[in-house]
Amino acid sequence: MEYKVKDLALAPQGNAKISWAEQNMPVLMLLRKRHSALKPLKGVRVGAVLHVTKETAVLMKAFVDAGAEVVLAGSNPLSTQDDIAAALVEYGVHVYAWRGQSSSEYYWCLEKIIEWRPQIVLDDGADLHALIHEKHLDLAEQIIGGTEETTTGVIRLKALEREGLLKYPVIAVNNAYTKHMFDNRYGTGQSTFDGILRATNILIAGKIVVVAGYGWVGKGIAMRARGLGARRVIVTEVNPIRALEAIYDGFEVMPMSEAAEIGDIFITATGNKAVIRREHFEKMKNGAILANAGHFNVEVWIPDLEELARSKRHMLPYVTEYELRDGRKIYLLAEGRLVNLVAAEGHPSEVMDMSFANQFLASLYLVDNKGKLPLRVMNPPLELDEMVASLKLESMSVRIDSMTREQEEYVKSWRHGT
Amino acid sequence: MEYKVKDLALAPQGNAKISWAEQNMPVLMLLRKRHSALKPLKGVRVGAVLHVTKETAVLMKAFVDAGAEVVLAGSNPLSTQDDIAAALVEYGVHVYAWRGQSSSEYYWCLEKIIEWRPQIVLDDGADLHALIHEKHLDLAEQIIGGTEETTTGVIRLKALEREGLLKYPVIAVNNAYTKHMFDNRYGTGQSTFDGILRATNILIAGKIVVVAGYGWVGKGIAMRARGLGARRVIVTEVNPIRALEAIYDGFEVMPMSEAAEIGDIFITATGNKAVIRREHFEKMKNGAILANAGHFNVEVWIPDLEELARSKRHMLPYVTEYELRDGRKIYLLAEGRLVNLVAAEGHPSEVMDMSFANQFLASLYLVDNKGKLPLRVMNPPLELDEMVASLKLESMSVRIDSMTREQEEYVKSWRHGT
Amino acid sequence: MEYKVKDLALAPQGNAKISWAEQNMPVLMLLRKRHSALKPLKGVRVGAVLHVTKETAVLMKAFVDAGAEVVLAGSNPLSTQDDIAAALVEYGVHVYAWRGQSSSEYYWCLEKIIEWRPQIVLDDGADLHALIHEKHLDLAEQIIGGTEETTTGVIRLKALEREGLLKYPVIAVNNAYTKHMFDNRYGTGQSTFDGILRATNILIAGKIVVVAGYGWVGKGIAMRARGLGARRVIVTEVNPIRALEAIYDGFEVMPMSEAAEIGDIFITATGNKAVIRREHFEKMKNGAILANAGHFNVEVWIPDLEELARSKRHMLPYVTEYELRDGRKIYLLAEGRLVNLVAAEGHPSEVMDMSFANQFLASLYLVDNKGKLPLRVMNPPLELDEMVASLKLESMSVRIDSMTREQEEYVKSWRHGT
Amino acid sequence: MEYKVKDLALAPQGNAKISWAEQNMPVLMLLRKRHSALKPLKGVRVGAVLHVTKETAVLMKAFVDAGAEVVLAGSNPLSTQDDIAAALVEYGVHVYAWRGQSSSEYYWCLEKIIEWRPQIVLDDGADLHALIHEKHLDLAEQIIGGTEETTTGVIRLKALEREGLLKYPVIAVNNAYTKHMFDNRYGTGQSTFDGILRATNILIAGKIVVVAGYGWVGKGIAMRARGLGARRVIVTEVNPIRALEAIYDGFEVMPMSEAAEIGDIFITATGNKAVIRREHFEKMKNGAILANAGHFNVEVWIPDLEELARSKRHMLPYVTEYELRDGRKIYLLAEGRLVNLVAAEGHPSEVMDMSFANQFLASLYLVDNKGKLPLRVMNPPLELDEMVASLKLESMSVRIDSMTREQEEYVKSWRHGT
Repeated sequence: MEYKVKDLALAPQGNAKISWAEQNMPVLMLLRKRHSALKPLKGVRVGAVLHVTKETAVLMKAFVDAGAEVVLAGSNPLSTQDDIAAALVEYGVHVYAWRGQSSSEYYWCLEKIIEWRPQIVLDDGADLHALIHEKHLDLAEQIIGGTEETTTGVIRLKALEREGLLKYPVIAVNNAYTKHMFDNRYGTGQSTFDGILRATNILIAGKIVVVAGYGWVGKGIAMRARGLGARRVIVTEVNPIRALEAIYDGFEVMPMSEAAEIGDIFITATGNKAVIRREHFEKMKNGAILANAGHFNVEVWIPDLEELARSKRHMLPYVTEYELRDGRKIYLLAEGRLVNLVAAEGHPSEVMDMSFANQFLASLYLVDNKGKLPLRVMNPPLELDEMVASLKLESMSVRIDSMTREQEEYVKSWRHGT
Repeated sequence: MEYKVKDLALAPQGNAKISWAEQNMPVLMLLRKRHSALKPLKGVRVGAVLHVTKETAVLMKAFVDAGAEVVLAGSNPLSTQDDIAAALVEYGVHVYAWRGQSSSEYYWCLEKIIEWRPQIVLDDGADLHALIHEKHLDLAEQIIGGTEETTTGVIRLKALEREGLLKYPVIAVNNAYTKHMFDNRYGTGQSTFDGILRATNILIAGKIVVVAGYGWVGKGIAMRARGLGARRVIVTEVNPIRALEAIYDGFEVMPMSEAAEIGDIFITATGNKAVIRREHFEKMKNGAILANAGHFNVEVWIPDLEELARSKRHMLPYVTEYELRDGRKIYLLAEGRLVNLVAAEGHPSEVMDMSFANQFLASLYLVDNKGKLPLRVMNPPLELDEMVASLKLESMSVRIDSMTREQEEYVKSWRHGT
Repeated sequence: MEYKVKDLALAPQGNAKISWAEQNMPVLMLLRKRHSALKPLKGVRVGAVLHVTKETAVLMKAFVDAGAEVVLAGSNPLSTQDDIAAALVEYGVHVYAWRGQSSSEYYWCLEKIIEWRPQIVLDDGADLHALIHEKHLDLAEQIIGGTEETTTGVIRLKALEREGLLKYPVIAVNNAYTKHMFDNRYGTGQSTFDGILRATNILIAGKIVVVAGYGWVGKGIAMRARGLGARRVIVTEVNPIRALEAIYDGFEVMPMSEAAEIGDIFITATGNKAVIRREHFEKMKNGAILANAGHFNVEVWIPDLEELARSKRHMLPYVTEYELRDGRKIYLLAEGRLVNLVAAEGHPSEVMDMSFANQFLASLYLVDNKGKLPLRVMNPPLELDEMVASLKLESMSVRIDSMTREQEEYVKSWRHGT
Repeated sequence: MEYKVKDLALAPQGNAKISWAEQNMPVLMLLRKRHSALKPLKGVRVGAVLHVTKETAVLMKAFVDAGAEVVLAGSNPLSTQDDIAAALVEYGVHVYAWRGQSSSEYYWCLEKIIEWRPQIVLDDGADLHALIHEKHLDLAEQIIGGTEETTTGVIRLKALEREGLLKYPVIAVNNAYTKHMFDNRYGTGQSTFDGILRATNILIAGKIVVVAGYGWVGKGIAMRARGLGARRVIVTEVNPIRALEAIYDGFEVMPMSEAAEIGDIFITATGNKAVIRREHFEKMKNGAILANAGHFNVEVWIPDLEELARSKRHMLPYVTEYELRDGRKIYLLAEGRLVNLVAAEGHPSEVMDMSFANQFLASLYLVDNKGKLPLRVMNPPLELDEMVASLKLESMSVRIDSMTREQEEYVKSWRHGT
């Protein structure tokens, strides 16, 4: 079997972690069990670019159990858990992933997936989708469809679609309610602080926290900053409606140029680049801490920081100290990459449970509807979304109401008055 | 001038209240000022069914100043502020509204509007839209368009649209982000408790609060219940995705049949009927308090309560005590009508500022696009929405970021990778 | 029977309100019932200066039922509920209280109590205790003891005690845990905003709220400001430890001179005078709102405001507009008196339940220990405090753990290690 | 130089960590600097039993710089950071500590301190104080005084004092406001969840969290559980006043026997033993997670768990799975020891800054007042406490108000009225 991982001997440790994830992913485990007998993906080649974590492992095992042949690469050069990678190889997945890749190694892994000629393409950030559309259009024809996990990836794919270049249908798993309303907000909200705490062990209470962006991720981070006792939670935005929502949610809003002067901790979650840049570094307080929760490591603009610094040292495993020329010290976490993935373990299993249940159901849906779907970036069908939610509630022993017949009629009708 | 109100002598008191509202509605005041010179609505007949409050008065005055002829009826038999009604008559508005109408008086007022042959129809709950479509189709042809303020009203109008019966374009002002994301959540969230406190003066801290429905209104109420210190905040829902969102937002979810046994305060916000009914009353604790925040007084099913009770008395102005046959006492607030409007003063001016700025801009838009719009229930144009948000931020002295040129290009492009 | 109230005909309305309070004061009702048979206060003259509200009425009725002869005056010229006063007269209490007294009328009422030669003196702010010690020392000798409800009053009495002037034992009911940890924090916290909302109907979400003082009252107000969605909650303090606690609780701290420039709503809760004064008024934004939650109307220094203003008008019943010479308008609520008592109904019954259960138990304790207590300001005995808490929990159907025998031994012992 | 640590080669890594702590401990750094010139502790032998963390290192270095001879042992067999221990040896501290000691090794280290005949005894849990009083009374005479860091330790020492056995004055540093109101609440509150997340990576949102004990530590944990989105936060208590406070703070209260059936995560913070025991394990849900935040590993009663289990395995570094005979699995974190110290890094530097500033000032105070202090467990003098708070505020650039002369007079006086 072909693969490239750090060390197969790490598999037992990986298996223990995966076993813990399985405990915390009841929805995916149920779906996995349900489809392991009939093997609806028998013979289908699945190529996945995902963060190689214990949760991804549970998804990969579900694909294997459903009959698929699976090839996996990591979606971030720093996020692979080597023991998980080893355990997956043992389970029969072709893994090309190890922690600490160079950029060229990262693309080499993507090319390995392409060599396997995947029919279903699972992506997280759309690097693989982009690579196929840029360099391997020949491959596109035999692809049944793809899925995309992130907001950033969906934006990139929509751009492709707008230009008429999209070559296979893609389900924007990110757009499932049970994905983006939960994963980004509650998952990233918590794990971003988990990453910051593991990296720094600072106290959030009493701090001034600046959150750039008030999308789902920013909302989650601002909420947890408040919940951990931050003295001020400041949001920066470019969209006036979101800015106003942040204010009514009880947060302050100001431009980054003002926030830069007062913040203790800065967290970017915009999906945009150079959100914190030279003009902001120049104003920051000594001791300011910078972390990124957006997909790419471009939100904190490191080239500017490198230029401004007279020296740089690694203080702690995920803390880099930049000493500026005027003596101020600024601390960058996880080299500006996703702090929750690099310094902590990414999303908790519980949210990945829903995201990946959507991934799995979306893949089945693509196969079931092979050849019938338009070359579009589609939202996942609502009934799959509600199925995921219902299974999740069930796993929590939570029951909900259902409408009476009179109520169903009432909401349909319009002929009633005051 | 024709009108029917309680007592014109109340006008000075009404004017003082309106003057206070004007202080707290900076966006609408700016728009009013901006359009009072050119009078873009000169000669247009505007018929409005809205809660007759000081905030509505500011909107009505904006229409008058913009040149319109305005006819106003109250949108709820119990919600009219008589002093405001008097003040508006003085300002030249044809008002047909007084507090404590019977149902037939309410419809008589609506018919008075119809007699005026309005060209723009502003509604809050779609009773006037429904009446026109049911009994006055002849009127429909000369109507330029309508607006609708509430979720409930939009649902009713969409049903009309689906059946192909809608006779003029309607802008669902409710769907403006600067309306529904703010008005329902922050406005109703706060004012529902304001109503409950004015009616009862109970302490929320330590109480078990049950919120039926987790739409925008329910979200706002649950959030404020927590913020006021409720010991448990329990949400009931029929939609699994919303139920799950409530859980992840830190609330409990259970069926009403279980919640009924433990709740101290029940607040309905579903838009549906009989959400609390016989089977629930039968299980409630002695002393349970019931309030409604939904549009119609059907969410707490009063006929069941009347049947179960052996006696009934008015304890306090907005508190009715039902003594059940087994001796338990249940307290219904505001006779099951909107507790924030009946027992308090409805939305604070600040949220109505945005809702009504949207109403005003939507009306101008309808007139500007007379004859060009489809017979549909439309969302308000996004640029109007963003204008409202930007003006609001400005009024709070809040500045936000704008994207650099590089950032604008970045978010448009898809050709960048890890 | 002697008394002086506004209008006895208001008694039925007062009785309905009292009946509602009785529903929400389970602890006091239980104690009242328990002592109405044996009448342990038979023949004791009780003189009380308390806010004449429905909750006070329940306490007064408990004293009457326990056999006491009761004389009552209001503890604030603006806080008396006239219908309650009437109902109490009907129940046999000698009431000297009406809403809207002049200062001299207020002191006349206190003198009426003194004429009755009370043996137990219940006070709220220590005005009656002070009057006795200043002008009626002859009366002091026959006084069994007193109680004091407020922090402010306890401070005044402690000053008397320090100077060796205290003439009878006083139980600082305010110092009962079940009083000050609940009444000030949860009661005043909620009712201060209740008062502000009834007075102004503004939206708290999005506002910048400044709280002067971070004692129990200030803590409660800051907590509720946050819970109602304020965008910034700023605390001012003179004590560094409290200031630091405010910061770690997630609030901002700054001097009033800075806060004055940015606040939308200012709420004083310091127990001190001139906390907001000329230097602050001069910096405030147009539209700033001022409210007081401290005992006396000296925290917002009105003489300075009067001097700075070129005009003044009553906008709404509890809102006075001061127009300063530079055109800025500042709004003072409830004439700087306790906003929760003047504009709303004071503490909710639920917290007064515990305060007044402590008052009642303290009075019984004074009588039981007549002549045995030192001339000191004493804390209430802990066992009474715990009795109140346990009865309250019981009324909420909440059960708690009790220690096993091993655990009791464990916490007593010191001979165990790591 | 004598010492016993794991590996001196770890010193550089330890020094980097200490350097990070120094950045976050501005108060202690200022005091250290201030006393390094005069060396007021010259020749004083300081024996300390503290968790060997980077923050303790900053304190130890302050003592060394002030002239003391310092001997240090770890206060918990599992909490020592070996790299810190090495770095301290390099700085001249006699360290006897390494991670993963047996109980006998732990006591061997304490005996090593005793061999050094310390004059100042710093303790964290009172094991060393107890050992001296039990076995080394001869040593007591030359001891100038001691300090104690924890609630648990203070309880043990108070028991000694009550029995008349205390042989030297002890300052209960734990009782400094700037210690116990901050360290226990904000420090342990955050770091307990930090430990749980590092150990398990679970999502707190949506979980039912049970907190045993509502002292300062329990308050902090309950607050953070809420802030991280727990669906229900349930408190168990034996004290009715604390139980009531928990309820009014917005939490549920019930006996552990009820909570056991519904909790997902249990966290003990009582200072008592066997708070969770056989009767509770028997009712728990499959998958329940147990963590301890109290000083000793006796709160979760492990002997009962061992007896009930049919097997046991280490799932993750700090997660032990107990499989009960009926198949349910229960997960114990950090072997029931302090989860924040074992699975994470203990308190953040920022809170230890204040605790240890108090430790340092208390030690100076003991030396300055040698021979003058009674054989009592004393609270730290208020002026030291306020000094710590003021320095902390200064380090955050926070300024506070000071009273005007009129205000100072006002608060002292009692002769003012309504």
